[in-house]
This record gives sequence, C-alpha cells and structure tokens, in this order.
Amino acid sequence: MTGSFVKELTPLLLEWRRSLHKLPELGFLEYITTYRVGRLLEEMGFTLHIGKDALNEDSRLGLPDNQFIEEKERQASEWGVENEWLEKMRGGNTGIVAIWDTGKPGDHVAFRFDIDALPIKESTGDSHFPSTNGFVSGENNVMHSCGHDGHTAIGLGVAKFILSNSDSLKGKFTLLFQPAEEGGRGARALRDKGWLDDVDYFYSGHIGIHSLPVGTIAASTEGFLASVKYDVTFKGISSHAGMHPEKGRNALLAAATAATNLYAIPRHHDGITRVNVGRLIAGSGRNIIPEDSYMEIEVRGETQEIGDYMAIHATRIIKAAAEMHDVSFVIKPAGITEVLVCDEELIPKIQEWCSTSEFVKEVLPSVTVAGSEDASLLMNRVQERGGKATYILFGTKLNHPHHHPEFDFEEEVLPVAVDAFISIIKGGSSND
Amino acid sequence: MTGSFVKELTPLLLEWRRSLHKLPELGFLEYITTYRVGRLLEEMGFTLHIGKDALNEDSRLGLPDNQFIEEKERQASEWGVENEWLEKMRGGNTGIVAIWDTGKPGDHVAFRFDIDALPIKESTGDSHFPSTNGFVSGENNVMHSCGHDGHTAIGLGVAKFILSNSDSLKGKFTLLFQPAEEGGRGARALRDKGWLDDVDYFYSGHIGIHSLPVGTIAASTEGFLASVKYDVTFKGISSHAGMHPEKGRNALLAAATAATNLYAIPRHHDGITRVNVGRLIAGSGRNIIPEDSYMEIEVRGETQEIGDYMAIHATRIIKAAAEMHDVSFVIKPAGITEVLVCDEELIPKIQEWCSTSEFVKEVLPSVTVAGSEDASLLMNRVQERGGKATYILFGTKLNHPHHHPEFDFEEEVLPVAVDAFISIIKGGSSND
Amino acid sequence: MTGSFVKELTPLLLEWRRSLHKLPELGFLEYITTYRVGRLLEEMGFTLHIGKDALNEDSRLGLPDNQFIEEKERQASEWGVENEWLEKMRGGNTGIVAIWDTGKPGDHVAFRFDIDALPIKESTGDSHFPSTNGFVSGENNVMHSCGHDGHTAIGLGVAKFILSNSDSLKGKFTLLFQPAEEGGRGARALRDKGWLDDVDYFYSGHIGIHSLPVGTIAASTEGFLASVKYDVTFKGISSHAGMHPEKGRNALLAAATAATNLYAIPRHHDGITRVNVGRLIAGSGRNIIPEDSYMEIEVRGETQEIGDYMAIHATRIIKAAAEMHDVSFVIKPAGITEVLVCDEELIPKIQEWCSTSEFVKEVLPSVTVAGSEDASLLMNRVQERGGKATYILFGTKLNHPHHHPEFDFEEEVLPVAVDAFISIIKGGSSND
Amino acid sequence: MTGSFVKELTPLLLEWRRSLHKLPELGFLEYITTYRVGRLLEEMGFTLHIGKDALNEDSRLGLPDNQFIEEKERQASEWGVENEWLEKMRGGNTGIVAIWDTGKPGDHVAFRFDIDALPIKESTGDSHFPSTNGFVSGENNVMHSCGHDGHTAIGLGVAKFILSNSDSLKGKFTLLFQPAEEGGRGARALRDKGWLDDVDYFYSGHIGIHSLPVGTIAASTEGFLASVKYDVTFKGISSHAGMHPEKGRNALLAAATAATNLYAIPRHHDGITRVNVGRLIAGSGRNIIPEDSYMEIEVRGETQEIGDYMAIHATRIIKAAAEMHDVSFVIKPAGITEVLVCDEELIPKIQEWCSTSEFVKEVLPSVTVAGSEDASLLMNRVQERGGKATYILFGTKLNHPHHHPEFDFEEEVLPVAVDAFISIIKGGSSND
Repeated sequence: MTGSFVKELTPLLLEWRRSLHKLPELGFLEYITTYRVGRLLEEMGFTLHIGKDALNEDSRLGLPDNQFIEEKERQASEWGVENEWLEKMRGGNTGIVAIWDTGKPGDHVAFRFDIDALPIKESTGDSHFPSTNGFVSGENNVMHSCGHDGHTAIGLGVAKFILSNSDSLKGKFTLLFQPAEEGGRGARALRDKGWLDDVDYFYSGHIGIHSLPVGTIAASTEGFLASVKYDVTFKGISSHAGMHPEKGRNALLAAATAATNLYAIPRHHDGITRVNVGRLIAGSGRNIIPEDSYMEIEVRGETQEIGDYMAIHATRIIKAAAEMHDVSFVIKPAGITEVLVCDEELIPKIQEWCSTSEFVKEVLPSVTVAGSEDASLLMNRVQERGGKATYILFGTKLNHPHHHPEFDFEEEVLPVAVDAFISIIKGGSSND
Repeated sequence: MTGSFVKELTPLLLEWRRSLHKLPELGFLEYITTYRVGRLLEEMGFTLHIGKDALNEDSRLGLPDNQFIEEKERQASEWGVENEWLEKMRGGNTGIVAIWDTGKPGDHVAFRFDIDALPIKESTGDSHFPSTNGFVSGENNVMHSCGHDGHTAIGLGVAKFILSNSDSLKGKFTLLFQPAEEGGRGARALRDKGWLDDVDYFYSGHIGIHSLPVGTIAASTEGFLASVKYDVTFKGISSHAGMHPEKGRNALLAAATAATNLYAIPRHHDGITRVNVGRLIAGSGRNIIPEDSYMEIEVRGETQEIGDYMAIHATRIIKAAAEMHDVSFVIKPAGITEVLVCDEELIPKIQEWCSTSEFVKEVLPSVTVAGSEDASLLMNRVQERGGKATYILFGTKLNHPHHHPEFDFEEEVLPVAVDAFISIIKGGSSND
Repeated sequence: MTGSFVKELTPLLLEWRRSLHKLPELGFLEYITTYRVGRLLEEMGFTLHIGKDALNEDSRLGLPDNQFIEEKERQASEWGVENEWLEKMRGGNTGIVAIWDTGKPGDHVAFRFDIDALPIKESTGDSHFPSTNGFVSGENNVMHSCGHDGHTAIGLGVAKFILSNSDSLKGKFTLLFQPAEEGGRGARALRDKGWLDDVDYFYSGHIGIHSLPVGTIAASTEGFLASVKYDVTFKGISSHAGMHPEKGRNALLAAATAATNLYAIPRHHDGITRVNVGRLIAGSGRNIIPEDSYMEIEVRGETQEIGDYMAIHATRIIKAAAEMHDVSFVIKPAGITEVLVCDEELIPKIQEWCSTSEFVKEVLPSVTVAGSEDASLLMNRVQERGGKATYILFGTKLNHPHHHPEFDFEEEVLPVAVDAFISIIKGGSSND
Repeated sequence: MTGSFVKELTPLLLEWRRSLHKLPELGFLEYITTYRVGRLLEEMGFTLHIGKDALNEDSRLGLPDNQFIEEKERQASEWGVENEWLEKMRGGNTGIVAIWDTGKPGDHVAFRFDIDALPIKESTGDSHFPSTNGFVSGENNVMHSCGHDGHTAIGLGVAKFILSNSDSLKGKFTLLFQPAEEGGRGARALRDKGWLDDVDYFYSGHIGIHSLPVGTIAASTEGFLASVKYDVTFKGISSHAGMHPEKGRNALLAAATAATNLYAIPRHHDGITRVNVGRLIAGSGRNIIPEDSYMEIEVRGETQEIGDYMAIHATRIIKAAAEMHDVSFVIKPAGITEVLVCDEELIPKIQEWCSTSEFVKEVLPSVTVAGSEDASLLMNRVQERGGKATYILFGTKLNHPHHHPEFDFEEEVLPVAVDAFISIIKGGSSND
C-alpha cells in the first residue's frame, strides 16, 4: 500500500528535484526555494512558519553581505515571489517550518530537510546527467552539488504522505525546511526558536556520502565532526608597490602565511582533524601593496575536544600571521556544528519498520562518515530534552564526491528515502 | 602674456580636475572620461581619433573581463555618452588622440596625458581635501589617487593654449590622452598605432612623486623601473573539505605558496628590484577545497636585465607552486614598462625656456624616482626613430604617497605644469 | 612455579634495565649493547649470530655516516668491547640473533626485542626517576626514551627462562635482538637474512604506549601505521649574501618551503595520516647564501594505500621546493614500516595461557595505537609463510609520552612482560 | 727604491699568503694564524698586544661555542702554538695588535688587516688555482674565500717596510690584525680596547670586490651597508611524531616560517636592503617533533635607518613565527657593522702619493660596493675623534665572487697593495 503510494509519487519527486536543481540558491538566500516549497505545503494544508517566524534571527551565522542579499531579494521579486512572502524573509531570513497536528494524542516527530546549494559552477559536460537531461543549474556558479535538492523533494514527499494519511496518524509532525546547512549556519537559528524543545523523535539524513547501492540505507551514522567556521579579515596599509614598498603593511601576505600554516596544525592522536581555507580574497590592484584581505576558514575535529584544539590553534596562527606582517585582524565566528551520537535504540526499530518496505532492501545499523552536519545542533537539543534522534544515510552510487562540479546521485534513491521515512512514521505510530 | 593666459585658465583647470576626480574610471573603462575630454577637444577644433581609431586593439594588455566592460558601457550610456562615441570605444577601447596641424613647417611635438584611476576606496575623512571640498569620488572603490585627473586637466589646458595661439605656432601637435597607464597596459596600444613614429619631440610628466615645492619642476627623471605584470591562474580540483580532503587539488595553497615565495626572490647586486602580488582571489566556499585561484602580480628591475631576472624567477616560482600542490597554471602577460632615459640635451633648453615663466620658479635638471611608467614605451619609440624625449616632474607637497586612500596634491601645481608645457611649446617654436 | 621464577628474576631485570638505560646507543651503533647482551646470552649457552651474521647488510636503511660509525666503534673499543666482537659488527652491523633448539620436535617460536635508543637529551630533573635513582643516561643527547632498555631486559629474562626450562620445552626458539627499530631501519635487514622464513609463531610487543595499569596487557594491537622515511638533500650555489644575493641558489629556503608544505599534505578520508620533518640542517655561514641543506622526514598512513599517498605527495613537494628555489635535490629512502594485522586466533589463546599468571591480571583482546613499528615487516613475513604473529602491549602508567625527555615507565611492568611471554611459551608448548 | 723593496718582497708575500691559505681558521679561532703572524712581527721587533691584551673580551659578538673553542685550542697546541701564546688567546681571544713607535713626533697612523676565514668547503677542482698549485685548504669546510689570507700577507709586508725604513719614518704605526671580520664580530672588541682613540689616519681595504684590473686601486669606497646579525633559537616541545603529534610544539616549523617570511621584508624606497638566513639547524630525530631550532641571520641596509628598519621587521617576524607555532624564542645579537663614509680629502692625497708607484697604475677616486665591513666601527671611531679614514680597494680579476668555493684572486695584487700602503706611509710622512 505504501509501496503504491510512493510508486505513484515518484514522478513528482523527480519533477520537484529537477526543478529545484535548476534554480539553486545559496544559504540564507533561498528566497525562491522557500517560496516554492512553502506554496506547495500551503496547498497541502500545513501550518506554516515562514522566514522570520521560523528562525531566531540573531542566531544566524555567516550571513551574506547586505548588498548581495538585496540583489537576491530583487531577483526573487522579479522571479515572482509574492511580496507578502518576501517581507517575511527579508534580510536573509529564509526557510520554513511546516506543522501538522493530527489532534490525536501521540508523539511529536520532527524531520529536518536542508534546502541550500553551494557556490560551485556546475559542469555542463556530456557525462553529467543534469546537463544532458536539461536540468543543469541556471545560476552561474551556484549548484546543488550536495544533494539538498533531493532532500527537499523527499521532504515534500513526506509531507504529501502525512496529508494523505492524516486520519490514520496520531501525534504531531514538524517538518523543518532549513536554510544554510552548508557551513553550519542555519540550524542554530531554528534550534533557538524552540522547535525542538518538545520533540520526542527526530529524524534527518543524507543522500549518498557513502556509495551504498540504492535500496540500502543506514539507520544511524557515526563520525560527524565538530566544526567551527570563521570569517577572517586582515587590515594593513596600502602603498605604491614600486615607489614605497616599505610604507605598506601587506594584508595579502598575512593571509597567505596564515593559510599555509593553518594546514600545518598538527594532526591529533585522538582522532580526525580537518582544516580548510575555502576562500581568500586580497588586494585591490596589481601595483598597490594589499591593504585588505579576507578568508573563510573552517576547522573540524572528531571529538568536541579536538574541535576545540583545532580552533585554538587556528586562532593563534591567524593572530601570529597578522603580527608577522604588522597588520590588524578580526576573527568572526561564521558557523558551528557539533559531534552527534545517534540513539542506538532506534536502530533495531528502523530495521524492523523498514523490513516490509518495497523500496528499502537493506538497513545497515550504522556507517561512519567524516563530514560535519549542523543537524547535530538540533539532535543534541532533542536529546538534552529527553527525545531520541538519529541521522540516516540513503544509499546511491556516486561517480563524484559531494561538492564536485559533476556531483550527481541516482534518482531512484528519492522514493527509497521517502518510503523509509514513511515506514518510520507508520512504525512509530503503530508502536505507541 | 603667457602668465595672464594661464592665470585666467586656472579656475577652469581646477573645475576640470575636480569634475574628473568625482568620476574616476579604471583602465580601459574610461568611457565617460574619454567622452568628456573628447567633447571639449572637439569644441576646440582638434582632429580627433577616438577609441579604436586611437589604439591598436590587439596590443592592449590586461583587459578587464567582458562582463565588467559591458556593465561599464551600460553605465556610460546611462550617464549620457552618445552612442556614436560609445561604438568607437566598445570593448574597452578608450582614450583619444587629438591632433593640431598648424599647416606651417616645423617640428612634430607630442604630449602624453594619462587619464585612468585606481581601484582604491577614497577616504571620506575630514583631513582629505577632495572630501571636505565636495569632489570626492562618486564611484565606490575607484579613485584618482595617482593624480591622473590633474594630468588630464593639464592636457586640456595645453590644448586650449594651442588653440588660442595657433597663428603664432608652427609644425604639428599631437596630444595623446592615454587609457590604462596603471599597470603598463595602455601605452603599447598607442605606440603600435604608429603615433610616435614621426615625432620630433615628446614630453610627458607627472605631478608629485617627490615632495618638491609647487613651482619647482625637474626637467628629466631617472630611475623608472622596467616592469612586467602577469595575471596568474591556478586550476585544481574541488572536493568536500571534511569528507574528502585527499581528493582535492588546492589552488588556493598554490597561490599562497607562490605569493610568499615571490617576495623572496633574491635582491640583486646591480640595482633595485620590486615584486608585488597585488590581488589574490581563491576558492568558492568555506567547506570546499579551492579549485581556482587568481593572482595579479608584477615585478620590476632597475635595468632591463634585472627586470628579466625578476620575470624569470617569478615564472619559475609560479610553476613550482603549481607543481607543489599538483594543480595546473596559466601565466598571462598583463602589462609592461621599460627603462627610460631622458635626452640630456633637453635639460638646459627646458631650463632656459622656463626661465621667464611666472609659475615655474626653479627647474632641477633631474630627479630620481622608483616607480614604473609606460610612457617609457612611447619615449623609447620616439628615440629609436631619432626624436628626443623627456619626462618632467611637477612639484607639489604630498601628505600621503601615491596610491594612498588620502592621496592629494596642491592644485597650484596645475597652472605650473601648464605653463611649463606652454613655455616648452613656445621655446621650441621660436628655437627653430 | 613460574611466579617464583619471575619473582626471583625481578631484581636482575631491574639491574639489566638500569644498566642499559645508563648507556643508550643510537640505531646501528649499539656496539656495547650488543656486546653486553651477547655476552650474557653466550654464557647462557645460546647459539649466537652476531652483527654481520645476523643482518643482511645491504637491507639496512638510514645508516649513520661513516665518521660517526668509526667514532662509536672507537668508543666501544675503549669501553671494552672485544675486538673479535667488534669485527663482526664493524660498519654499523649491530644486533644479535640467539637460537635455542630443544632438539625435540615442536614449533619454531620467535621473539623480537629492540635495543636502540633515541637522540634526545634526557632530563636530569628531580621529577625524573632515572635521574633521582642514579641511572640517567651517561651519553649526552642520547636516551632510552621509548623503553627499549626494558624490552632488552625482558628479552634476557625470556632467554633465562628458556635456559632454565629447556628440558620441559620442545621445538626451537629464536630471540631477535634487533638494532635500529626507531625509524624503521633495522627489521628489513633481519627479515632479509631469512630468520622468519620458517617461524610458526612470532611475538613482539611494547611497554606503555597506552597508560594501562601494570598487570594489564593487550593480546594484540591495531592501528600501527605504514610509514616511509626519507633523507632529503638540496644542493644550491653559495654566494656573498650582501654583495651578490642574485648569484646564490638558496638550499635553505628550498628546505624551509618543503617543510612548511609537507605538513599541508591533505588529510585523508580513509584514515590517519602523519608527517614529520624531524631534522633540518642548512647553510654554512651567516653571510653566505646557503648552498646545502638536509632534511630527515617521514610520512605515515593508516593503510598501505594512505602510506603510498603520503609518499607520493611528499616526493612531489620536495621536487617542487627544489624547483621553486632553482636547486637540485636527492631523496634517499631511510626507513620503512608496514601496516600489521595481528592473528585474531592468538587472542583467546593468550588470554587462556595468561589466566593463571601471578603477574598478568587482565588480558585485553586488542588496543589501538597510532605509531609505526618495523616488527611489521617481520610479522608480515611470518604470516606470508603461514605462521601466526601478534604484537602485545604491556601496561604501565606513563607520566610523559614516548620520546619525551622525561619518559619513564613503572619497572613493575618488566616481570609482567616476562611472565606473559613465559606463559605463552609454556601454553604453546603444552598446546601442541 | 720602493719599487725594488716591494719587488724583492713579492716572493715572500706569495709564500705568506699561500701558507696562510692552507691553514684557514674561522673567526675567534685564529689561534695558529695569530701565532704565526705574531711570531713574525715579534722577530721584526714590533711591540705586541696578543689576544686578551688586544681585545675587549666582553665586546666580542657571535663567539663559537665552548666545545668548539676548546677543540680548536687543543688542535692549535698540537700544531705547535706555544703554551704562553695559547694562554693569552684562550677562550676565543685571537688577533694581535702590533705597534711601532718611531719615537719621533708625527702622526699616529693605523692599518687594519683581517685574518679570519669562512665555513666553506674549498673546491679541489682543476680550474681552481690554489688546488692545482698545492695550497688548497687543509681544513675540511673552512676556506679563505674572501681574501683575508692576502690581507694578512699585505699587513706583514707593510710591517716589513716599517721595520726597514724606521729611521726615515716619524710618528707611530699601529697594525691591527683583527679576528672575526666575517659577521661583523671582531672590530667592536678592538675598538672598545681604545686602539683608535688617538689615531690621526686610518687605512684599511680589500682585495677584489670589483673586478678592476691589477694595478688599479680605488682611494675610497661608498656603499658599505649597515648590518645587524642575530643568533635565533626557538624552543618547543618534543613528542612522538606518529603517536602524539598534537603534544609537540614544533621549533623547526617556527624557524622555517621565520626564514621564509624574513626574505619577504619589503624592499625600501630609500636604498638597498639585504637579508639572509645563513644557517638553520633544527630537530633531533626523524620521528620526533623538533624541540629545538637555531638560525644565524643577518639584515643589511644602505643607510643606518634602513638597517634599523630591517632589524625591526626581522625581530617582529621571528617573534610572530614563534607565536605561530607556540614556541618560545631568544634573539641574540651576533654582529654589527655600520655605514661608513670615507674622508674625501684623502682621495687626492692618495692619488698624488701613488702617482710614482711602479705597481699602482691608476687610482680611481671611489667605487661603490654592497657588502658590509666592520672596519666601519673602527673608521667611525677615528672620525668621531677627529682623525681621517678611508677604505681602499685593490683591483684583481675575479672569476668567482667572494665566498664562492672557487674564489681566488690574482696574486699580483699583493705587491700592488703593499706598495700603495707604503706610498701612503711615505707620502703622509713627508707631508707633515
């Protein structure tokens, strides 16, 4: 029965996914995405909390600059986002929280779907499926290369199921369509709005990561890294590079020295470390000693302690790089993710609930990953309040890693994921 | 007599300078500046060669990218540049050559005035004269901080003199209003159009450089450095920085390593060396191994040999930095200046001709500078063809060095410079 | 019974350990250590293979330079090493293999004990037990700070047991007292001599690493890293640094650039990476552009693939650093360790055999470490030939990590380790 | 007459020079050189001040370490330096001051000859004259590659002239045979002993530097750079590089980062800058995070201000490099030279006095150099006290620059230099 629901839904899942893929938006700029998703949920009859009603504004991290925000709002308006919606999102307050209360006593179950894209120029090559099938990104230098287009489509599928089966369900369902997952910037703003405070069960997940076959899922994940992200600016003094090099204070060299040395933070006995300088922008003209530079960096650690260790080293290195080139500096936190521990008791339940799925063929208890996820902030809040949470992986073959210009997943994973969540909803419901 | 002409002209010189200062344009984007200057010269009756008629297109170096060019053309059109003019300049072909032929036998005398501004954010502070006097730059991040607004005004003053005294003059006058002097990008395109091939005397010059008092000029300069400018791109492979750092090829680290090591090119026994990485842009997102990076660099040397030495080292270092981080690279020449040697025999002549000037109080034979000038390409061409050339400095107190956000000069230098050029024209004319 | 043997042996174990500790010798220079150990084994009646008879000379890696070898041979001679012994070891051929054949059919069991020390200046502080108890290193800048003095003493204890219980034992025992374990330099030379080719069971192990309590051992270890070590030389051109910097080719800067960038080899998704530039020596005089530089480096990986990945990156970086500073380079392999996998079937056996030990209180199945061990080469050879092998950890509290100037272990671990090996010998013997 | 004296002396000059060349000694270790020179001066009847009587001990900079000093003293003793002499020099107090007082009123004229060699391995190639003529350095890695062997021989020749012509001379002559010129370490100790305080005329000089032809000299030099030399130590924490990289504090990386960034101190508008990291020694073993590192650096500037600018930058960079890698540091001054200005009035005098020389064919007024010279400290003291001083260059063709393993000069320069000094002595004497 479920099977046939999902089977029928599948063409729609693909349509949603592809149409989202064509119009990717960066974190806190998902104006059109929020609007499209929101309009569909509105039609389904969900109670909506849009933009500023969904987020705690001050908890957002790593906001784009105002000029860029305004430009995107203008484009969203031109695209057709209604003014009423735009007002609720204005100033980088994107994302939406959709609630369905069955009115019957039962658990409060929450799902998180992330909706943002990445600043990557999508491949238009012949070996890239979205390119050859007409749904490649229409935005220059922005791409859904982490599968959040799929996540969003899955969320809409789950919504559709809740709507269609409202009578047989009980309790309350909260669907969080989260902005700005990349960089660990958005979850904090959802968390601080209180959505997780009385949640009994929390589920989120990801397409891919491991190249498991379609049909295989993992009921939990281990290994998500704690991470901290910083925006770093160095301020020096410009000078004519030919005439008065000695009067300059070189902010570019400070950044270059910091970058090189950041990667040399010693590895750690207790577990994984990561460091990345993802962007570096410095200088204004060829023959001017660079007065300004800007870096976007992140560090990660397998444990909270290692995360802190990395952050302490990074901060010191940046300070020393500034001193080395006699410039000043500012370090601004721009994102954060935490270590997460899935509740083990959910594993056998998920395995049982999915055992009759026509789409889910195998449920691994757990797999290990090495990225970072700001769902961790949501999960940790749920668990602090006594709820249970897990993070599920949905298998698909990957020809290219996440964040690659040719990243793509097998679309057959979409019905699998929807059916897994449906199985969980039904299993959880019947379980009570 | 001259004195009273220049005295009357002075308010106009200031008006021109200030109005140019308010609307600074970067090299090869001087659409409005060219138009304004051109319209004035047209009114005076000069024969004009605009844009593509002034430049050898293929000889331009370091062109802005097309998107930027088109944006500026749109803005110029909105500002009011006539379409006929815009067509002649389209595609970054700015600048104008104005010719006045007296019809009488005599020398062909050429003057070069550079018209471009710099990518520097002008100070709006209380101690900055253009700011407190209402003519601060209206363009964000663009500024006349090298005095080319003054140079352009001087050129217009010289034109006005030629017009007013046409009857008493003989020979031919060519006024080159050159785009893109910064970065050594524009002179080659003028030279290769042939304007210098039959010039007997060539004069150019600069306001400031040394903090000589207003009224003091130097009849020649020594020490301009040979320079080469490069645009460098590194191309790596992006990857998720947390999950698959080992799959990335880091173009940002290649650029940072290149930058650091470029400054370590050994100093040279035979003379001055300079190196600058003026801009560095790398990466697309915080959690993505940077796939692309871009640098604007320049190297200089006191002699052509040292210039070559610097260029060879720079090229090798960039190549090695690419190899170090396993990325590919492209080095594109983006500008060139040569060593220049002023003709000594012009010095006593200039001293004599200016001896009766009411504005020029003292003529130093020569001063030493340490910048680079692409007038060198023009002067070297003139001298190769048997003409004479010199580069004059016009004294003004400077509170801040060239290319500084508070760079400014004493406007009293403008009539001094115009009167010096007038004295040269008159002296040269009577001399024959 | 065993208990009382070991109890009686304990004072001797401590005496051996302390006397070895006072006279530490670096890898391939363990002339006195080999002699002292050898003389004791000779007295016990073992068949000895000394120095060149123990090693395959050409398989040694990272030999000290000849001058240093000769100096140490001279010192060994002065100390009292007999000439006959010295001849067998001449040229850095230290170490000894001691064989006891019971003459009765049975397994061939081999043990490896490493005997070399480290180039670390031992603490003479009040909180350092060897210092306050009169057995601190008498060699300047050489120290047993990895516990090999203990390992050697344990080996002598095991030998003593074999001698004392020869009648009740069967099969054949080979005790490998290996030189130059630090740096992965010595095991290959033992392996290539063929000692492991017909071994049925192989045991080695380490004191400490984890701060397990004395009495606790681990029957196997996981996590030893594959590693490659290189000696790197850069050759440039010297020049007067004040007069002709441009004529130099700076080998010091090549090494510094290589060092900085080696630490930036990207971390790896599949497991642990390590890199270290342990030594850097460059230049000859302050005012001379450095003509020569030398680095000792190592890279490690959790799998053989990661080890190879690190080696490939390291090699490329060194090459690029040479090119960056226009110098030549030579990379010489100086050591190697492999990934090792203990045979799981030995774990329950060791747990059983040790269950009646008075010294071994608890046997953990396995612990994870992150160093490198060239016993891996010996174990892998045994396993290739069908034998079984494991690497045991012997617990002791550690106040300072291995290779620290105040490294020390609790001497109570020595009888525990001896009794564990005795239990294994007896258990294995009775098992057949 | 002079001509024939010098002609006869020439074979002896060559013999002295070659025998000194065979036995080069580093700064403050010139035990044998001092002894040999001293014994010859003693035979000539000069009043000698040896070692501690010549130097102000506490003013010496950059002393070798004690162990090295003691080893060299042992070797000097074995070579045959008498114990009485050795006692006077013990502890790195080499050099000698020889005084000849004619007893007649007249000027006090001082000459400085430097006697130290460099840590460079001399070429033994077929194209190297000392090698093919049997007087190549007998000391491994030490070489007279700056011509101080020649300077010392010239000094002995001057002494011989004074002795032979004592009757016809008047006033007082002080010959300073200075240790440790390289690195600017010795002159301060001579100066602070007071030898220059009442000197009327001071002469020193150098063979080569410019490739002037033999027979050409320059009566003065310009351009010697102010310089400061530092010994830098970084102190971190060692740790096992495989097991606990995070517990280390890497002193090697601090040094490498400092080295790379030191070369990037911005060039200076006002004149020449130089920087060199001449030596870098770091780390103790391959698999140990380096706890210690040591650098010998120097910076130079064309003016005292630029020298100070370089020193301030260098000091800050070293501090920042330490902070970057969380290690401590010590910066110890190890040498100093000053800017020197030759007295112009000596130029025509020297030209006149040498005009009748058979050896000196041409006297250039002045040449420009770019090295550093601690004779500057002596000259500046003389000039402060009202005396006159100059620094003379003696032409010789150079196939290789100073400090090169194949540095050599034409020996014909030796009689030229002696005859120049003799002409000065005679001219100055007669002048009064």
